[in-house]
Amino acid sequence: MNPVVVSASLILYLIAICQGSGTDIALDAKATLLHRIDSLNLLIYTCLLTLTVLTIWVFKHRRVSWLHETGLAVIYGLIVGAIIRYAGSTNQVTYIDAHPDADTKYNLSVPPDIVRFHFPDKIQISSGEAPVPNKTYAYSFRGEIVNVEQNEIDLKATFDPEIFFNIILPPIIFHAGYCLKRKYFFRNLGAILTFAMVGTALSALVIGSLMYGCVQLMPASLAASFTFLDTLYFGALISPTDPLTVLAIFSQLKVDVNLYAMIFGESVLNDAVALVLSGAIQNYEKRYSVDGGFEITAFLAAIGDFIGIFSLSLLVGALIGCLTALMTKFTHVRDWPLLESALFVLTSYGAFLIAEVFELTGVVAVLFCGICQAHYTYNNLSADSRNRTKQLFELLNFLAENFIFTYIGVSMFTFPKHHFDPWFIIAGFLTSMLGRAVNIYPLSFLLNLGRKPPIPMNFQHMLFFSGLRGAMSFALAIRNTVSEARQAMLTTTSLIVIATVVLQGGAATHALAYLRIPTGQGQNDENEALPYRDVRSNGRMVVKWGKGENEVVMPWQLNSFEDTPHGNGDGGGEKARLARLWGAVDSKLLKPLLTHARPPLTETLPAFLRPLGRILTTTRQYTQSENSLRRTDSDSDLCIDEPQPVPTTIDPQLPYNIRNGYGNV
Amino acid sequence: MNPVVVSASLILYLIAICQGSGTDIALDAKATLLHRIDSLNLLIYTCLLTLTVLTIWVFKHRRVSWLHETGLAVIYGLIVGAIIRYAGSTNQVTYIDAHPDADTKYNLSVPPDIVRFHFPDKIQISSGEAPVPNKTYAYSFRGEIVNVEQNEIDLKATFDPEIFFNIILPPIIFHAGYCLKRKYFFRNLGAILTFAMVGTALSALVIGSLMYGCVQLMPASLAASFTFLDTLYFGALISPTDPLTVLAIFSQLKVDVNLYAMIFGESVLNDAVALVLSGAIQNYEKRYSVDGGFEITAFLAAIGDFIGIFSLSLLVGALIGCLTALMTKFTHVRDWPLLESALFVLTSYGAFLIAEVFELTGVVAVLFCGICQAHYTYNNLSADSRNRTKQLFELLNFLAENFIFTYIGVSMFTFPKHHFDPWFIIAGFLTSMLGRAVNIYPLSFLLNLGRKPPIPMNFQHMLFFSGLRGAMSFALAIRNTVSEARQAMLTTTSLIVIATVVLQGGAATHALAYLRIPTGQGQNDENEALPYRDVRSNGRMVVKWGKGENEVVMPWQLNSFEDTPHGNGDGGGEKARLARLWGAVDSKLLKPLLTHARPPLTETLPAFLRPLGRILTTTRQYTQSENSLRRTDSDSDLCIDEPQPVPTTIDPQLPYNIRNGYGNV
Repeated sequence: MNPVVVSASLILYLIAICQGSGTDIALDAKATLLHRIDSLNLLIYTCLLTLTVLTIWVFKHRRVSWLHETGLAVIYGLIVGAIIRYAGSTNQVTYIDAHPDADTKYNLSVPPDIVRFHFPDKIQISSGEAPVPNKTYAYSFRGEIVNVEQNEIDLKATFDPEIFFNIILPPIIFHAGYCLKRKYFFRNLGAILTFAMVGTALSALVIGSLMYGCVQLMPASLAASFTFLDTLYFGALISPTDPLTVLAIFSQLKVDVNLYAMIFGESVLNDAVALVLSGAIQNYEKRYSVDGGFEITAFLAAIGDFIGIFSLSLLVGALIGCLTALMTKFTHVRDWPLLESALFVLTSYGAFLIAEVFELTGVVAVLFCGICQAHYTYNNLSADSRNRTKQLFELLNFLAENFIFTYIGVSMFTFPKHHFDPWFIIAGFLTSMLGRAVNIYPLSFLLNLGRKPPIPMNFQHMLFFSGLRGAMSFALAIRNTVSEARQAMLTTTSLIVIATVVLQGGAATHALAYLRIPTGQGQNDENEALPYRDVRSNGRMVVKWGKGENEVVMPWQLNSFEDTPHGNGDGGGEKARLARLWGAVDSKLLKPLLTHARPPLTETLPAFLRPLGRILTTTRQYTQSENSLRRTDSDSDLCIDEPQPVPTTIDPQLPYNIRNGYGNV
Repeated sequence: MNPVVVSASLILYLIAICQGSGTDIALDAKATLLHRIDSLNLLIYTCLLTLTVLTIWVFKHRRVSWLHETGLAVIYGLIVGAIIRYAGSTNQVTYIDAHPDADTKYNLSVPPDIVRFHFPDKIQISSGEAPVPNKTYAYSFRGEIVNVEQNEIDLKATFDPEIFFNIILPPIIFHAGYCLKRKYFFRNLGAILTFAMVGTALSALVIGSLMYGCVQLMPASLAASFTFLDTLYFGALISPTDPLTVLAIFSQLKVDVNLYAMIFGESVLNDAVALVLSGAIQNYEKRYSVDGGFEITAFLAAIGDFIGIFSLSLLVGALIGCLTALMTKFTHVRDWPLLESALFVLTSYGAFLIAEVFELTGVVAVLFCGICQAHYTYNNLSADSRNRTKQLFELLNFLAENFIFTYIGVSMFTFPKHHFDPWFIIAGFLTSMLGRAVNIYPLSFLLNLGRKPPIPMNFQHMLFFSGLRGAMSFALAIRNTVSEARQAMLTTTSLIVIATVVLQGGAATHALAYLRIPTGQGQNDENEALPYRDVRSNGRMVVKWGKGENEVVMPWQLNSFEDTPHGNGDGGGEKARLARLWGAVDSKLLKPLLTHARPPLTETLPAFLRPLGRILTTTRQYTQSENSLRRTDSDSDLCIDEPQPVPTTIDPQLPYNIRNGYGNV
């Protein structure tokens, strides 16, 4: 895959050819070689990840805060990418031009799936060996070659971009949904939805327009290659934020939970929004093939696309999530945790696949499936499965995330389709910052008109500062690199991702201190519940963590047992009307239907539906005590803010002091 | 992928073509379509697995014993395969014949990696539309088309066979190694190695020779297509056993642990042996391209290949395992369990990749890596990581195993390269049974000459009966289906796998009862340790299970606290001399070096190496009490025989009674 590998093993390959006597053996050797190169390529990434893991450990051990793990992965990637680039020569792929038989019966306007290639046919092979026998080989379709002169058929130099959408992103996004801080998420739903939906669209539009303006001011060759749709697409792909680094620091420092929920919720949702938005822009482009100007009907169709695909994907994910909840509620599969975990993983992946089969967005489906799995299914799972699924997705997420950041670094040097254009890069940096500002400040102002405790100015600055770009932007940029415009976008996106992750990520602790954002905030806020969950109970909430009989009460939970039924202080009036409505439906209909939660449906449904309610209520729902329900429920909420693993040797007070420690670095 | 899908979506495809106006849009639609078909194909398997999981639950719930989960997966696969086959038409792949340009400068004897295909070039596309513009497309190499007339270019109908070797088998094999019952494995090492190494080779030779004889007696057309090497290859691929079903029943019924260890150990190792053996046969074939006769030097080279590749792969795996043990011993990465688990997974996968890069056998490396990880690294891990890695690989193993058996069922109908030859199939069934008999009975006789408590006759019958064929045979058979001979082998192998898994698997409980093999045997034998582990302690062994502070003592462990330091009754004299030697090296050098186990190296190394020993000993090794060591160690051994999850509602005495329940079915 990598040039150095290709060139190094070409020698082996030639040796293999010399040793063998026939084409068959050479072909076998070639297949073996390709497999070895694939393995070597994977091995390089495995070693890089191992190195990253070990360095992260050293950093955590020595409490280094000026570089976060994702930044580390990027930097290692850059170093190894540079070594690969400058240690070997590129483009060892062999090719031949071919033409179809004139007398073929093929009669479709698209090229065929398979080319049956006759080789060597009329070519003169001037090797000293015996003549190569004529054979027929199958060649499968890969894509169009736009620039035939450039010889840029470097198809093997990197991974297929679709790998990101089908293998790397789904576990990351599912994990985000599965661990969404649901309580504060719903409390700040209004702000989160505004930032994620309106904000991302606004940001895309602003960046797209500004970039189009910038491009027009640039040299003519560049200006000609960008249409307005191109720059709008750039706006859409650079808008989603990925504040991994910031959030890791937040949870370490126990930053205000509302701020945490807003940043996390927004970043999870704006990934989904940006993905669907960029799809809608491409559809618009595809469907009308106009020269870049606006057509009203096309524009409306694109908006329809956006809304339709987003909501249908959401529906698919939510339905599969609810279906899993029903399966785990009404069967006793929880008696066999392995089966239960397998079922959980299979249905969650099924949500992704179903959405893809129906031309929806699998990533969006998997996000909402994750949210439903956490909100409903998680409560039905056995203690073993809860633990297993949580740990499994945590590990997958960790590996996938670090892989993608390593790959961003490596591909900066090895991906053959980069196009460095200083003007475009500078413009990209400036407009992406501006786009983030347009997302946060005006919308916060509008939100503050209706919010009881407004979003304070330093929170707004922090929201602005958390606008790191990450995996989704990169995946969207690398998906299509046919034209020079797209290549320039990829380069700019890669650079923005690298810069924001390394620099902004490293400076996040200082930013928190500089903006005087309160840290070390009581985790006692954590268990303050939404009214809809506590409407029936004033009892103490016992927070359990871990497996069934063996729960561990985390030290920081000890001071959190006082339950505040209707939200105290600033919490009370803050929650959105939307959350109130949703809360009623959720607690009276969905939770009793999909989980073993009380009150049972027989109490909440209107009288004429009671018989149905009786069928859908399990004996466990009737018999269990209020108390055990509370426990299950709060456990489910805890899934979200899994504490950073605290080394056993370190004072449990550390999180409260760490900020000062960081401040001195 | 599947015919029904292909034909169903061809309509969508044509609609898409009609709607669009240019080739670009049609091409985009085609790419989307291919992606949707891929997703649909995966979705079918996901649904099948979900169905299997749910049915397994029902079977476990109702205590059905006449069909095991793998048998179930195969049967579901067969049903869905038949539906796909007969509900749709096949071969919708479009193709064109092409020839290279005569004036190309290409000068290698192998076909190129990429064909740059000019389309439509000189072809007349007689659609009513505007003329299709000439473009160049990239086509990548897929393989040789042997039978050009048959039009059998159904490359998309199934998964790439390499997926089995690179994705499905590694987690299965690693899990087997990670969970190998090490104590009894070492005690029966002699028998296991004899059955696995000598037995598999013998079985392959016998089956190969007999099949060659049978083929010669058959119609001439068939006889001509098989060489002796072909039938020998068949012998090698059909020899490995896969007694999943049998072992699941064994551990449920608590069958004699020595028998369990022999069957499990043999099946794990003979997979590795068969894989390397078949590789050596192919190398032999490749290297000398003779007409099937023997050449002494080639034969010796093949044996050298076999020994070299096997032992080097073993070495790579073991080294990576030990390296991981060192990393986890000398760093404090255990303070962050997520990092630790990630490191564990990455290095284990790294072992596979390194072996593949050096043209060794990754599967063998991963097996021995798993054994070392369990024997050394596991002891250094934090409680959280132990749990996480165990559960992760258990889940991966479950999914991979069920996938492969489902796929065997589906591919019986959908794989285009089956060749049903009744004579070959009948001969295959008979010889594979004979081969198993030749493996077990004569070798048992020889072993019994040297074994103190001999392998009793009913154990031998059970060993014979446990000769189910499974994943490895299928993966080897589907790897190469170029010639008709190979296709007949695939068909026969698939049928043997299906028959043995469904019938023998279902009858295993009855066989146990019929052969009067003692079941419900005390798990108190489980913790009887090899002398080398207990040489320094006569204290009680406390068996802990679970996470760190929260261990659960399983009910069946309660009667196992009496430690028998030197093996009681039949155990004492049985262990092989090999095991004794290995035990000394292991307990005096490897365990103290690679884990925190006592005695430290400072006590076991000769005097002149003591300073080195001091460097390699951790403070924890000096300071920890004997007792905590025992606990860690026995926990590590328990990893192996993870009890079948027992439903919480069922009487813990159940395992002892289940046999009678099964007998009545």
